[in-house]
Amino acid sequence: MVLLGSTGSIGVNALIIAKRFGIEVEALVAGKNIALLNEQIEEHHPKYVAISDEKDRPLVKHHEVFVGKEGMIALLQKTQSFLVVNALVGFVGLAPSIEALRLGKRLALANKESLVVAGHLLDTKKITPIDSEHFGLWYLLGNRPVSKMTITASGGAFRDSPLEVLPHMSFHDALKHPNWSMGAKITIDSATMTNKLFELLEAKWLFGCDVLDAVIEPKSIIHAFVDFKDGSTTAHLARADMKLPIAFALRGEIEEAILPPIDLVEIGSFSFRPIEVARYPIWEIKEDVLAHPTRGVVINAANEVGIARFYNHEISILELAKRTIDAYRFFHDVHPQSLDEVFEIDREVRKYCLK
Amino acid sequence: MVLLGSTGSIGVNALIIAKRFGIEVEALVAGKNIALLNEQIEEHHPKYVAISDEKDRPLVKHHEVFVGKEGMIALLQKTQSFLVVNALVGFVGLAPSIEALRLGKRLALANKESLVVAGHLLDTKKITPIDSEHFGLWYLLGNRPVSKMTITASGGAFRDSPLEVLPHMSFHDALKHPNWSMGAKITIDSATMTNKLFELLEAKWLFGCDVLDAVIEPKSIIHAFVDFKDGSTTAHLARADMKLPIAFALRGEIEEAILPPIDLVEIGSFSFRPIEVARYPIWEIKEDVLAHPTRGVVINAANEVGIARFYNHEISILELAKRTIDAYRFFHDVHPQSLDEVFEIDREVRKYCLK
Repeated sequence: MVLLGSTGSIGVNALIIAKRFGIEVEALVAGKNIALLNEQIEEHHPKYVAISDEKDRPLVKHHEVFVGKEGMIALLQKTQSFLVVNALVGFVGLAPSIEALRLGKRLALANKESLVVAGHLLDTKKITPIDSEHFGLWYLLGNRPVSKMTITASGGAFRDSPLEVLPHMSFHDALKHPNWSMGAKITIDSATMTNKLFELLEAKWLFGCDVLDAVIEPKSIIHAFVDFKDGSTTAHLARADMKLPIAFALRGEIEEAILPPIDLVEIGSFSFRPIEVARYPIWEIKEDVLAHPTRGVVINAANEVGIARFYNHEISILELAKRTIDAYRFFHDVHPQSLDEVFEIDREVRKYCLK
Repeated sequence: MVLLGSTGSIGVNALIIAKRFGIEVEALVAGKNIALLNEQIEEHHPKYVAISDEKDRPLVKHHEVFVGKEGMIALLQKTQSFLVVNALVGFVGLAPSIEALRLGKRLALANKESLVVAGHLLDTKKITPIDSEHFGLWYLLGNRPVSKMTITASGGAFRDSPLEVLPHMSFHDALKHPNWSMGAKITIDSATMTNKLFELLEAKWLFGCDVLDAVIEPKSIIHAFVDFKDGSTTAHLARADMKLPIAFALRGEIEEAILPPIDLVEIGSFSFRPIEVARYPIWEIKEDVLAHPTRGVVINAANEVGIARFYNHEISILELAKRTIDAYRFFHDVHPQSLDEVFEIDREVRKYCLK
């Protein structure tokens, strides 16, 4: 396989699963954590390696190192593997997703922005999502007609904070996720609930379901619910550990233990809370976004700019969502019909948000 | 279809479903509620009718009435229907289950005692259970390997009572089931948890799973959990209404709404409690019973005698379970190898318990 984003939390878990199942690692793509990349090179002996920065090249213990976005695409074109695992973070993950599909490869996709910004332009039949929620939905589907899909949210770092303290919470505070150990970007997106809005968009493209919702389940043990037409609802539960969806994405089906089972009596209870607009302002546009899913590129670009500003203490976490909504409304008439248009709109939105 | 037990709660719901789907009702078998039977005759025009008591025959508005256990068997032999719904209560349901299967009919089985006392002697491939828990398990099964099945219990009428008041609770008190409106016998079996022990035995015969457990879920909305080998658990949720499992039992698969969907935010929370031996003494022998499932006939006979004694204020609800356990231990070496032996052991156990 080819692994894009090998030093992040998904990447590290993907290598654990690859080792367990004897999957050959043909190429590793990493960012700036060269120390960890070197360890991974030593253990997995990839044929090709790519990194972000030219200046890190001398530090990498490999003879065939590609650099930058163009280097990553060139690396993909050299590989023979059928499977590409894309665990890059943010809009930068889109170009390699497109290239992997163009090359006829199967895409195990943890980079949710690919589907958020261009779900209508990608062949989702060749995509397996790496994500507890979409894995849960997929696991529950059978041949029975579905009436609704619901995914769960942890609620993020501020789910229990008094509303009045939210304007004073810092980037650092927002990184304290209650249940999952994940990268910074997705942890911020959890605190704002933008991550869940993105996942609803992904579910729409992946499963073609039009009735979609999310609910807060603070323990992150129930990941997904499917309502069937007959009146049954089924739920997917598992420990909060990405190795389970990764193992299925890498192997298709699994008939052995990846995680220990959950223990209901030990868990004791589950609770469900609605997603309130006062705490998660982005939720105000949820239904509108699902009705206009091709405008995902606007939300994503505005969100990425907003996260940088939140990081720089320029705006509060509530303003981050409000600025994203403002951009979403300003660009109300965009309908990208090609990947070129997606890139073009992404640039325009960033320009607008940086004003 | 042929409906045995038409005036009970399962029978009444089965007729609602039959009417909705235009299923012809060839025969109705009822007990002593002749007024309701007459209404059902007027609405469904069955070809044959059977009742329990000869003395009620003049009251039945039908020209072809069979009477008693033998009459019910003779009626079954006359019918052409492929489907027999057995919603009789207690051991009396076994003989018609056997006869329906011998006649090559498909058996939609709400009479759980049939499987409890003779599961190893019946062809379970021709049986569809009418029961929320087994329906839930069946709904969740696919092709993935299963490691454990768990069904839920409401906990019955005394789940929240202080332990010290249990010896003083009457038959009437035990009928106050918190969630389901059911017949008297199964409601008492819910209060003692014997119903759940029976359902575990049924699950063993129906699904061939050896690792089985039950847990109290007080809202009776989650009906079943399946643990899969990979570490996933799936759950079946639905409103507490027997029309859903009945519709599937009558039709095989259903692609339209039988019940409205559940609403997670409105439900708010679920909790799980272990089944304590102090409150439900029968649970002491759960693992032993699952290891010796052919002794179900002993538990059932002792339980039926005990319920009559509890009804007559001769014993408390805790003694009811303790006497069942005593009989189960006394008859530790029975292994019925034929239906005749099942009937023989049933008689012996009743004699022992009436001493």
